[in-house]
Order: sequence, then C-alpha cells, then structure tokens
Amino acid sequence: MTRTPTAAEVKRHTWWGWGSEDVSFHVDDKPAFAPFVRKQIGLDLATSTPQPVPQLETFDVPDSRLPAALRQQLVGIVGEDAVVDDDELRVVHSFGRSATDLFRVRTGDFERLVDAVVYPASEEEVAAVLRLVLEKDLVLIPYGGGSCISGSVTPDPAEQRPILCLNMGRMRQVLEIDETAGLARVQAGAYGPDLEEQLSAEGWTVGHFPDSFAYSTVGGWAATRSSGMQSDKYGDIADIVRGLRMVHPQGTLVVRPLPSRSTGPSVQEMVIGSEGRLGVITEVTLQVHRIAPVRQVIAYMYPDWEHGLRGMHAIARSTEVSPTFTRLSDGPETAFSLSMVKEPRSAKGRVTAKVQDGLFAYLRRRGWKVDSEMCISYVCFEGTSESVERQKSIVKQIVKRNGGISLGSGPGAIYDQKKFDTPYLRDFLLNHRVFGDVSDTAAPWSRLNEVHDAVYGAYRRAMEAQGLQGFMFCHMSHSYHAGACLYFTFAVPYTDDASALEQYGAVKRAVQDAFQEHGATLSHHHAVGTEHQPWIEQDAGPVGTGMVRGLFATADPGRNLNPGKIVSP
Amino acid sequence: MTRTPTAAEVKRHTWWGWGSEDVSFHVDDKPAFAPFVRKQIGLDLATSTPQPVPQLETFDVPDSRLPAALRQQLVGIVGEDAVVDDDELRVVHSFGRSATDLFRVRTGDFERLVDAVVYPASEEEVAAVLRLVLEKDLVLIPYGGGSCISGSVTPDPAEQRPILCLNMGRMRQVLEIDETAGLARVQAGAYGPDLEEQLSAEGWTVGHFPDSFAYSTVGGWAATRSSGMQSDKYGDIADIVRGLRMVHPQGTLVVRPLPSRSTGPSVQEMVIGSEGRLGVITEVTLQVHRIAPVRQVIAYMYPDWEHGLRGMHAIARSTEVSPTFTRLSDGPETAFSLSMVKEPRSAKGRVTAKVQDGLFAYLRRRGWKVDSEMCISYVCFEGTSESVERQKSIVKQIVKRNGGISLGSGPGAIYDQKKFDTPYLRDFLLNHRVFGDVSDTAAPWSRLNEVHDAVYGAYRRAMEAQGLQGFMFCHMSHSYHAGACLYFTFAVPYTDDASALEQYGAVKRAVQDAFQEHGATLSHHHAVGTEHQPWIEQDAGPVGTGMVRGLFATADPGRNLNPGKIVSP
Repeated sequence: MTRTPTAAEVKRHTWWGWGSEDVSFHVDDKPAFAPFVRKQIGLDLATSTPQPVPQLETFDVPDSRLPAALRQQLVGIVGEDAVVDDDELRVVHSFGRSATDLFRVRTGDFERLVDAVVYPASEEEVAAVLRLVLEKDLVLIPYGGGSCISGSVTPDPAEQRPILCLNMGRMRQVLEIDETAGLARVQAGAYGPDLEEQLSAEGWTVGHFPDSFAYSTVGGWAATRSSGMQSDKYGDIADIVRGLRMVHPQGTLVVRPLPSRSTGPSVQEMVIGSEGRLGVITEVTLQVHRIAPVRQVIAYMYPDWEHGLRGMHAIARSTEVSPTFTRLSDGPETAFSLSMVKEPRSAKGRVTAKVQDGLFAYLRRRGWKVDSEMCISYVCFEGTSESVERQKSIVKQIVKRNGGISLGSGPGAIYDQKKFDTPYLRDFLLNHRVFGDVSDTAAPWSRLNEVHDAVYGAYRRAMEAQGLQGFMFCHMSHSYHAGACLYFTFAVPYTDDASALEQYGAVKRAVQDAFQEHGATLSHHHAVGTEHQPWIEQDAGPVGTGMVRGLFATADPGRNLNPGKIVSP
Repeated sequence: MTRTPTAAEVKRHTWWGWGSEDVSFHVDDKPAFAPFVRKQIGLDLATSTPQPVPQLETFDVPDSRLPAALRQQLVGIVGEDAVVDDDELRVVHSFGRSATDLFRVRTGDFERLVDAVVYPASEEEVAAVLRLVLEKDLVLIPYGGGSCISGSVTPDPAEQRPILCLNMGRMRQVLEIDETAGLARVQAGAYGPDLEEQLSAEGWTVGHFPDSFAYSTVGGWAATRSSGMQSDKYGDIADIVRGLRMVHPQGTLVVRPLPSRSTGPSVQEMVIGSEGRLGVITEVTLQVHRIAPVRQVIAYMYPDWEHGLRGMHAIARSTEVSPTFTRLSDGPETAFSLSMVKEPRSAKGRVTAKVQDGLFAYLRRRGWKVDSEMCISYVCFEGTSESVERQKSIVKQIVKRNGGISLGSGPGAIYDQKKFDTPYLRDFLLNHRVFGDVSDTAAPWSRLNEVHDAVYGAYRRAMEAQGLQGFMFCHMSHSYHAGACLYFTFAVPYTDDASALEQYGAVKRAVQDAFQEHGATLSHHHAVGTEHQPWIEQDAGPVGTGMVRGLFATADPGRNLNPGKIVSP
C-alpha cells in the first residue's frame, strides 16, 4: 500500500497546458521537423516568434462563489488542506486538455470556473460530499487526471449554483490483487503510472495504455469509456472492468466482480461512460495479467494505405495470431513521423540512419512513394519466446502477401519509448498559433477506406473555405473483429485570437460530420462531454439518446451531478 | 433469402413439454441408466408407471379476453392467419420450459393465459402492434422460441388487461452478410438452426450454441443475455451483438453496427437482457466467423474435481491456447454421463467399450474413484490442422501436470452429436414424478470450489429437510479470464401433485441462496424473468436494481411491455 497523499501532493497539469512544466517539445534535435512544418502548414519556425508563457496574474480570474459556511462544512468532511479554492487550482480543474481548453486557458477566457476543489481520501468522504451537494443544491464535477479532450470536466457557463470539483487523486491505492481470479481492486483516483507501478511490483499488468496514460486515472478511464493502445489484446476499459463501486444519490452502487452474468440490462455498462452524471466512481475491479516473458514491437512498411489496411485486416482475421496491438500510420502520418526523427548522435545511430537511407532509395527504385504514400505499421507480440517467434513469422508472411516489408524491432523500440510524449507537441504548436487536435472514430472494416477518404475531403474543404493551409494525418490504432479505430490528427493554423476558436470549430465540425455521414461513430475513445455533444443524437439516434437522458434524470432529477454532459439538458 | 413462413409454419414446442412430440428420451438402449436412477433417486423404472401424456380437452382452459374489435384491429395489421387465439396455442405461448412451467402445463394449472398470439412479418407490423398496445392499454409479451426457464414469457396472473403474445418466428431471415466486416444482419425471430443453416451455406458461423439452440431465437438470445457452449472463444451474446433495432414506445431504436464506441452509457447493453421490457427487438447484427477448417473435441479424465478445476484454470491462463470451449463435469455428472452410454451395437462399439473397461480398471488400480470422483472434461480446438495439433499438445501437457489423462477424440465426437437432446430427459423424468432442473451461476476462479461445495451442501440439506432422496451434478461450462460458469443439474422426486411445486421450490431457493452467499451471480445465462426475481436485489444491489427499474419506468410508464419481469413492479 502506498501512503495516501495530501491534496498538495496530487499530480496535476500546469494551468496553461499539458502535463509538467519541466517537459516540453524540442525542435532543435529534429532536423527534418522545421522544413516539414514550413512546407505543410506554412509555419516558418526560423522567423516565427513563440508566444510567451501566459502569466495568470495578467488575467481576470472570477472569484469563487462558494459561501464560507459551505466551505466550512466541506472542511468538516475532508479536512482544511483538502478544500482548495485558489485561482490557479480552480483554473486547472475547470478545463480538460482539448484544443479549445488550451486556447481558452492561455487567453484567460475563463468564463465560469469551479468554485472549489475538494480532495476526498475515502469513499465515506465522497458520500458525505455528495449528500451535502444534494442537500444544498450544489453542483459536483468528478475529476480524474483532467486529460479529457471533450469538455467532460468543464462547468456550464450558465450555472448559477456553487460548483465543486471532486479531485479523486488521493485515492490511488491498489487495494487487493486476487491472484487466482486475475482481478485487482483499485481506487478510482489511481493514475496510470500509479496503477502499473503497484501492479508490476507483484508481476501483474492491466495492459491499458491510453495516450493520456501519465495524466489519466482508473476512474476517468471507466467514466469516459476509454480505450488504450493495447486494447487489441487486453480489451477496451469496458472489457477490463469486472466490477465497481459508485457513490450514487440513492446510496453506494456495488457491482460485484463477476466474470459474466445474465441478470437484466447491464448496470455496469450504464456506469461506464457516464462521465459523472450518475455519481462518483470510487473503486474499480480490473482484470490483470501476468507480465509476458517476451514483448516485441516489430515495424513494417507498406507502399500505401490500401495495401496497409488490407494487411491489418488479414492480421485481424488470422485465427493463428493475437497481437497486443496492430497500428498502421497512413502516408501523411508516416511522413510526419519521419520528420520527428532525431539527429543521430552515436556511431550506431549514424549507421542506422545510413541503412534507412539505403532502404528508402531501394524502395523508391521499386516505385514506392516514400515521402507521401508509404505507410509504417507497428505490431506488438507478447508471450513465450516460441509463440512470439511463431506469430512474428505468420505476420511477416501476411505483410508480404499484402505488399509490405518487415523492418524488424529497431523502430518499434523507439515507438515504445516515445508513446506518451505526443501531447506536449500541441502546446509547442499553440505557441506558434497553430491548433493541433485529434478526432477518433471507429467503423466496420468494410467502410474504413470510405471514412478515411471522406474525412480528408471534409478537412480539406473546411480549410480551403477559410483560406487556411493545414495538414492532417491518420492512423489505425486498434482493431476488432468487426472493424477498427481511425485516429485523425490535424493542424489548424489560426490567423488571430479573435477568430481562432471559430476557425478551429469549423474544421472540427467538418471532420465529425464526415464520421456521421459515413457510418462511423462520433468517438471511439474520447467520450462525449460537451464538445462531441452536437453529434450524440445522430450517433445514438433519438430513441437511444432519450434512454440515456432518462437514465440520468432518474438518478439525478436536480441536475447536481456534472449537468449538461453527454446529453442536454 | 428463405421465404417468410406463415404463422402456422412457425416451429413450436408441444403444449405439454419440450420441443417436438416426435423426439423423446429412451431408456431401453441405455443399460446402466435404470440402475443408476434406482440407486441415486430411488426411482425404479421397472415398476414405476409413467403418467400418460396429458390431454388438453380434460383441462379447463380460460377463455381469451381479447375483445372482438381489438382482434379485428390486429387482423388489420398482420392479417387473419397471423392472429391466433385457440386454446392450444395460447397455452404453448403462456409458458417457457422451466420445471415449474412443465409441471403447470401438465397439470392444467393455467391460471392466466395470453389472450392471443400475433405473428408479425415485418418491423412495420411490430411497430403498428406496439402502437395499438399503447393506445388501448394492452399488454405485450415478445416471444422467441419459448425455451426460457425463468418465467420471462409467462403473464402476470393478476393482469386484468388483454395480453398479446408477439411471436417473432416469421421474421427469420439473414438479411445481409458483410463479408469484409464479418457482420450479419439477422431478423430477431430466426431460430438457431435457421441462422446457422443460412450462414453456413455461405461459409460462416456465429458460433453461439446454447443448449436451447434448436428452440431459441436470435432475438431471444439478446433479450435474455444468453451464453452458449462455445462462448469461451466466440463470446457471450453481449459480445457477439454489434448492433440492433428495437421497436420502442418512443420510436425505433437503431444501434448502428460498430466495432466499439465511447459515447456515453451503452444503449445496447441496456437492451441486452431487457426481456421485452423496453420494446421488441426486431433485428440484430451479429459477428460472424469463417467456419474453421479443422474442429476437434478432445476428452480428458481427472481423478477428481479439484484436479480438474486446476487444469481448467491453467488452460484459461495459458496465453498459448484459445480453445473453442473448455468443459469439466464433476464426479456426479461424470457418473451420470456414463449411465447414459448406449449399449454397443457394432463390433467397433464393443471394442471401444472393452477398451474403456480396461482403462477404468487401470485407473482403479492407480487409486482413482472411477464411479464417484473421476471427472470427464471436453476441450474443443478449431483452426488450421497445425494450430489444432499445437494447441492439443500444449493442453495435453497442462492436463498431465494437473493429474489428468487424455482420452483422444472418440468421446468428444459423441458429445458433439448429442448436445441438444438433454432437455427431453426432463419430460421423461416428469412422467415418473421427478423434477429435473438446472441452476447456473458464475464466480471468480478464487471462489469456484467454495461455490461448488456450498451448493451441494444447500441442496442436500433442503432435500433432507423434506425427506426426499435426490441427486445433483455439475459442470464448468464456460471459462473467462476472471472466472467460470458452474452449471448445476438436480433432481427433485416429488411425493404428490399438491405439494410438488412447494417441494421443488424449497430446493431451488436453497441453491440460489447459496449462490448469493458465496459471491456467485444469480444467473449466468438463464436471465431473470420471474423465477429468479427473488434474488435480483441481492445480485444487483438496491441501487443497481433501482437503476434498472428507472430504465423500464422511463420507457414504459404504463407498464404495457412484459410487466413484472426482471424487477417488480
């Protein structure tokens, strides 16, 4: 058991951007990056002056509206140190980390902030806070790592009642590992690294690694119906959660940990993805697995997206392999990745770079469009060394049959080390007045190419209509029996602060509209919040949306629990 | 496309028992069976006179309460032939096939029957019937194959309004196979054999084979959250369903077929298991798989349950094998199975029997209790011949390490052929005044032994308290990462018709109570209906039960849709 941290010890984002102030994206060691962004989005890093780090003192921060008497009652429940209402922490806890959120905090566009941040240390404290919220008609917004990009933790600007943010970060223990069942009971506030460190000390892993891993929590994963980069093998969070506890207005909901059941509609599946609208998840029971003896990430190259996707489909259809993940970058993303390669500093690195140059020259002679259409793919294998070798051999044949080649494990090792640093690039780009954003979706295999084309077309038209030069790229990040997730990343350079959000919004809308028009879902793993809400009725249909609305209204008729999220009212 | 059948062509149970009148359980060709039942439950088949087949004319069948004007309106929607209100069909459609149901129909204990059976041929007809039901304040009970054993299709005896049974059997088409995505759109009324015949003609399978397969439908599987004997590999129905359509009081719910999504609470998971309380499922999109080139069922023997369960656990934990199913019979079930073996009629059969006798003699010498504790296990492998051979070899080693031996594929082939005939045994036993019933559950691996012991103890005490001699057996029917399903079968010989249901009920309650007391679920794949309802609040907790109740009340405030099922009111 790790010690319960104090409120001040709970990890948090810097108020103006992603993650830690001590980590940032650097361009100097990546010689191809500046030329790439100059060509693709017209940004000349040699002449562009980055915006300075914003200073909170220069902004007008709205005062907390929490009455002193209420504050005292909260202190009575969680203790003096665990009720915080200073400006900086109220700003941090009032926004996720979407493109809109980042722009708003950097420009001091705070509108309506939470009035206090409360840090409970136990389920009893959560229950006592919820009772007070209902009794005094307050608003409660549960908060995990604050990494969401769809507005799930941001207060409604029109809300007149006092708003509390409930930061679950003190509740971060792995409470119990049932080694026979392969189940771990975990407090909801455990961040990804907290969780995996406590488990790996005993030889276990959950295998859930969203890009937000460093700044997201177990409870947040459940509340937003998260997926991770190893979900091919370990499942989405909805598959991994086997039981949970939630403080609900009518009492504590206990979903007992069971492998399966056939007892009516799934209560657990009502809670997964509910984004705080039904209550506060305090504990989750997760499937855990023994850490595999061997793990290898192998890189492959395909001449283009169509070949790559056929390869991915064939791997998914093979009954003989079960990779931990299968990822395919399209041509633009592959070109972007190559622009991010660091200048080799060691003799070994220089040899590797030379080998790569030789390979690319060979592929060019074979007719591959190495700079635009070539696609890189990563496939991860885990198991005994015998089974990893066998699966690698089968996948190598599948890749070959689909026109691709294997690059071995060198590039894969690099991928594995860098995977959680990408979010820092968005802050770097914003410094240069460029939004970097993502929209993810899932569709059946039979429609993935159509969706891919349609989204690029929608993005291009939305940018052209505004006279903007931009760049989009995409990867297939997870595969399922019936289809796969496509993850689009796109840049929107804006012209001035006044029209920035409008310019970005037009592009985001075009992308999401394209999902709906081509049989893809609104959101594969980024939840709904407020930013995806305009499409929820198209996605779930009017009857489905009504069922969700009814679920929330029954639990929370007074709209005290994170109101306005997912569906409105 | 198969032709839409007329109402008269829809397959149905005989009114007094399971399935077809032309199939029944025979004792003459099973020399060990009569001695076995004499020893275990004190029933002497040599002297017992079977009760005659009941005659409907001898019973008082309540009249239909459907007003003539309403009948005419229904005829206007579905046609004259598709509204049926004769006595026999009203009896057939007012009961599932639980022990209680079978006893009640055989003794003419009809109480309250449905007033008419309506056979829609399209979703439009379903919607029109539902509109009429709401407009005229009628009750609608959707009906698939009528194989449920928890009362899901039986009307509330206190219901005063006219009650319609909606038999979905005319809607049995596989509408479309998306070969790329591996998805099939299927009408809800397709019976198991309908579905697999249409799919296998194109080289596909769903891989969902509940014991009720011959008399259950796709819509029924979804509405009761079904599981099948190959769910280890293909998943439970909740995993197989990727989209659906349901006629709901507020319109038609369309859950689009998508591989995954993160858009709030799962609407699909509210519908799965809802037993008609939210509306009528009309269409389901299912994952389909190419029929495997090689399929083998291998039999194994363990000296006792503890060794067998350890073997099963080790197979489930192996990352190197993925069997289609893994089944383990305990000692009593193994003894029962051996009592069911047919007398060999061919020279080959006689050789096999001799070999078995020799093997058992050898095992006895090794100290195995062949007649009481020895456990038979079946594991099914599918794939290429290479992968089947590799997996068989790994499982053989696992079995050996856990004290078991492999018997090869001979007994497995027999198992595969006989799997859907077991329900007929219950009718045979009832002819001799013996209830044969089942209760299934699931629990984490860490508690399976405890649950197994506790259920046997509870059964034994409940029988002794009533002075009854009975027999119980159990198998582990599916395994999951976190646990497995235990499936208990038990006999309750009753003394006279007047106290029969009371005697049976005391035993059933004891078994279900033991599930709750030892961390197991109320029902792994037999839904809730009315017969499992006394335990739903213990299983889902008061808050969870309230959430389910709220879901139903929001959709159906007038309680027109299969009222009283799962939760009450």
